[in-house]
Amino acid sequence: MVELITLYTAKICPYAQRAEIALEESGLPYKRYEIDLSNKPEWYAPKVNPASKVPAIAYGGPDVAPETPSPESAKIAESLVLLEFIADLSASTKPLLPADPVARAKARFFIEAVLSKFTGAFYGALTRGEDPAPVLDTIDILQGLLPEEGYVVGEWSIADAAVTPFLARALISFKHDIGAYDEGAGKKLYDVLQTDAKYARFRKYYADVSSRPSFKDTWHEDVVIDVFSKRFNELRIQRLAQK
Amino acid sequence: MVELITLYTAKICPYAQRAEIALEESGLPYKRYEIDLSNKPEWYAPKVNPASKVPAIAYGGPDVAPETPSPESAKIAESLVLLEFIADLSASTKPLLPADPVARAKARFFIEAVLSKFTGAFYGALTRGEDPAPVLDTIDILQGLLPEEGYVVGEWSIADAAVTPFLARALISFKHDIGAYDEGAGKKLYDVLQTDAKYARFRKYYADVSSRPSFKDTWHEDVVIDVFSKRFNELRIQRLAQK
Ligand SMILES: N[C@@H](CCC(=O)N[C@@H](CS)C(=O)NCC(=O)O)C(=O)O
Ligand SMILES: N[C@@H](CCC(=O)N[C@@H](CS)C(=O)NCC(=O)O)C(=O)O
Repeated sequence: MVELITLYTAKICPYAQRAEIALEESGLPYKRYEIDLSNKPEWYAPKVNPASKVPAIAYGGPDVAPETPSPESAKIAESLVLLEFIADLSASTKPLLPADPVARAKARFFIEAVLSKFTGAFYGALTRGEDPAPVLDTIDILQGLLPEEGYVVGEWSIADAAVTPFLARALISFKHDIGAYDEGAGKKLYDVLQTDAKYARFRKYYADVSSRPSFKDTWHEDVVIDVFSKRFNELRIQRLAQK
Repeated sequence: MVELITLYTAKICPYAQRAEIALEESGLPYKRYEIDLSNKPEWYAPKVNPASKVPAIAYGGPDVAPETPSPESAKIAESLVLLEFIADLSASTKPLLPADPVARAKARFFIEAVLSKFTGAFYGALTRGEDPAPVLDTIDILQGLLPEEGYVVGEWSIADAAVTPFLARALISFKHDIGAYDEGAGKKLYDVLQTDAKYARFRKYYADVSSRPSFKDTWHEDVVIDVFSKRFNELRIQRLAQK
């Protein structure tokens, strides 16, 4: 039997949104607790996640308020660990990974590519002002791993949960040219992604994943635009000042 | 039913040894094919792994020679993907992950820590001549994730397969002071790891994992010493020459 789930999360965080999307798709009941990353509660690191990051899940134990986590619940962190955990919990009620071992391996290979290729390129541009052009190449790699139609392994799976929050943030950053990268570079990429025939499969895929309620209900565009503009456009200015 | 498994591997490679260890523990039959990394067969990248790395598995399809892989077999790469794949294949005959979702999450959290903390610190020292002292801190982190006795999640699991090949290479590198790091730095760490009471739990754990046939039968100490000495002591000399 599945026990009580409390998710510690933050609207801004793509890693945390992965877990939220998977929980929404699973249909499992859970409590959602927003952690203010700019002012973290002092109980969070000692009682939930020593790394002091979101997402984390408290699983099992008595039904307590999220602010007073019980030592009896298991505390689990790391978004990709949580995706597998949520898939394990809902395996018999709502599978979030296919049953076939080869298809499961394809889903995990895709997740590995998101981790080792896409997120680093995007964060390098967004937060350190690196040239965002290589992000297109990594989107092309991911696109190349997709089947002709549908989700990463046909049916929706945790592989789709792993990538969607990062794609959403990359698109919003480029569209509004928000980031530490050079002014104008984002808008240029956005146009390519929206119009170039090369990215047609990507556009269809993004339309598919982003139209699901699990994404729409966990995506806070205003928050992302607001926090990203404040934080990363500021970095752009500092970076230019240092030149 | 489990289909034909061909593992493309290399004695020197810790990533590849992960898959070999898991296959040995699974009891599943497989063909082992050694790839000479210094002289890779030209069919390997186009027909098995476009990234041109080991390990990779060809799964299913007709019973062909490893040198002529069939387009009908599935090709799977990335060591951590392969560990999960092997665990999926052998789930009903020889479980390599516990059934309990929380214990599975613990195994995966440990694997994540190996990936994000230990391997980078060790390879930085071995191949780029960084100070190896931080490797001790990462060993301490891993040690802190172990239960008082036994393997990462009690029974042996793929979490143990993920870490053991890297521990073995770190210990052999330090013991013989082989690496791009400063001369003598390895031996010093080796002494600490062998004698300091702080690392008692680590020593016991390493004795446990390294005494299993799955490790002993897939560990080629002479090859590792030979290749590491040639490659990384050379880098140490170049590094000193540049100073
Ligand atoms: N590797 C972690 C990364 C999680 C992460 O970096 N979360 C960020 C927010 S997006 C965080 O909580 N940072 C701590 C802080 O901002 O103080 C995962 O996959 O869950
Ligand atoms: N991320 C990969 C890394 C595999 C890897 O780097 N393998 C090395 C040998 S240890 C390799 O095949 N390198 C290609 C080469 O040497 O040409 C995995 O986990 O499987």
